[in-house]
Amino acid sequence: MTFELTILGSSSAVPTSKRNLTAHVLNAHERFFLIDCGEGTQIQIRKNKIRFGKIDHIFISHLHGDHIFGLFGLISTFNLLDRGKDLHIYSNPELENILTRHLEFFERNICYNIIYHHLNPKKNEMIYEDRNIIVETIPLKHRVPTCGFKFTEKPHFRNLKKNVVRDFKIPISKIQGIKEGEDYLDENNELILNSSLTLAPYKARSYAYCTDTAYSEKIIPLVKDVDLLFHEATFCKKMKSQAKLTSHSTSEDAANIALKAHAKKLIVGHFSARYKDVSPIIDEARAIFQNTSPAEDGETHVIELSRKD
Amino acid sequence: MTFELTILGSSSAVPTSKRNLTAHVLNAHERFFLIDCGEGTQIQIRKNKIRFGKIDHIFISHLHGDHIFGLFGLISTFNLLDRGKDLHIYSNPELENILTRHLEFFERNICYNIIYHHLNPKKNEMIYEDRNIIVETIPLKHRVPTCGFKFTEKPHFRNLKKNVVRDFKIPISKIQGIKEGEDYLDENNELILNSSLTLAPYKARSYAYCTDTAYSEKIIPLVKDVDLLFHEATFCKKMKSQAKLTSHSTSEDAANIALKAHAKKLIVGHFSARYKDVSPIIDEARAIFQNTSPAEDGETHVIELSRKD
Repeated sequence: MTFELTILGSSSAVPTSKRNLTAHVLNAHERFFLIDCGEGTQIQIRKNKIRFGKIDHIFISHLHGDHIFGLFGLISTFNLLDRGKDLHIYSNPELENILTRHLEFFERNICYNIIYHHLNPKKNEMIYEDRNIIVETIPLKHRVPTCGFKFTEKPHFRNLKKNVVRDFKIPISKIQGIKEGEDYLDENNELILNSSLTLAPYKARSYAYCTDTAYSEKIIPLVKDVDLLFHEATFCKKMKSQAKLTSHSTSEDAANIALKAHAKKLIVGHFSARYKDVSPIIDEARAIFQNTSPAEDGETHVIELSRKD
Repeated sequence: MTFELTILGSSSAVPTSKRNLTAHVLNAHERFFLIDCGEGTQIQIRKNKIRFGKIDHIFISHLHGDHIFGLFGLISTFNLLDRGKDLHIYSNPELENILTRHLEFFERNICYNIIYHHLNPKKNEMIYEDRNIIVETIPLKHRVPTCGFKFTEKPHFRNLKKNVVRDFKIPISKIQGIKEGEDYLDENNELILNSSLTLAPYKARSYAYCTDTAYSEKIIPLVKDVDLLFHEATFCKKMKSQAKLTSHSTSEDAANIALKAHAKKLIVGHFSARYKDVSPIIDEARAIFQNTSPAEDGETHVIELSRKD
């Protein structure tokens, strides 16, 4: 039941020699969700040994080049690798027009389908659901229509304690009910309380991705109690006016969102290329929200399973 | 009087974890000519510490994605860096339409001009000239219209020997004539032979870039005696039929072109991503043309000055 985030790129606008453009991969139960796709994403996917065939869903926050110019090459590579499966792209509707024109010239013989899912970046809505995960949009505040994404595990069932099926001779037909919290009437008509049979369920884990955005308190309720929050911090605090001008966030903006939302951990990134050393940004964020880490290309953040009390 | 080639990418079609997509930079007398621009080129430019502001001319061989998808990000980065100078792009005319549509959406406020130079890939013609360099097209044989490029220094003048201006009291007005081979009548009406005053000129250096292409003997006269020949070798010799099918070359094809053209040195590249180790390709080429090197990302090949006999 993996739930882990790999950062593929952490620079904003232009890449540096150390930081690629924005892209994240969330491995949720061995489904690999690609979030944004800046130039060089397919190279980062290879370097991080993520299998192309595992990626069926791409979520695009907004249509600025540093978040999507890697799509052209990735789509081409999928084609050259004879992908058969559908590829789902969730984005601003305009991306469909852009890619359709692009494919007409560059990928006339594409061997798989692209399914476009049009997002309304003004609404918080569920846009994806499978057996384990739901994905919702998070309206953000940027110069162009932009939304973030929150990935949440569906509630876990309680776990059977070791050997209880054998010891209490529980028939298979009763197991799901017990996992859902039922007590069990055994063959001697004795009531076994659920608490004797099961452990508390694992907590549903969550990851929220918020970039690009100015400081917006509307984000807070939508990322409340999230296990891992990625929030952009393009600038340090003394560049507050530049952040405002460009609809980006500072170190302190990101940390305040994390603090007010009671996030468990904050990763900041989408760093302006002017910062060769991002430690001032991290220090400023930590002064407000201690559990802050910088986004670093190639780093994986595992969200461990933990049980409810 | 630098004349050196830096390989930015050496993989074909798809990048690998070690090889980026095709792009070369020729530094000819401190003008940096970018040749092809696969995805990730701007990142490679940064990693190789080439200044963006030095690149004014981009030569595109053909409109397959692995040779041009880096243009979108590079054009955007030039804009973000407040480029003022014109950018010249030499390519198939269709690229102008593609980029014009692209710019309308992604770079509405572009702060510099792009000057498009339309190439006819069927003709060998001069497409660029400055004080030091000329560039010609080399028609190639590929699935879509494609041309290579030959960069040649203009002839060098003879060099004055040390102290001759002082020793023979040569007035400034006579110097250029002497560099061009004239003898000198000194103040005593004594004729000083040019050979006493000058050294033989440096040879004009040249670099030819041939990718993507099937084996074509029409290339040979156009790259005759070139100092450095880059010729693609997408496949090893046992994949000859695959090379033919896709209009690419094998190790032996590249080496035979170098041999028959009397090139001084051959670099092969544009390797199929199936080759984790390209040494079989190099060995096969060397069996025909000894002075062969593999294209390796980040490597620079200096063409040294040498004098005519």
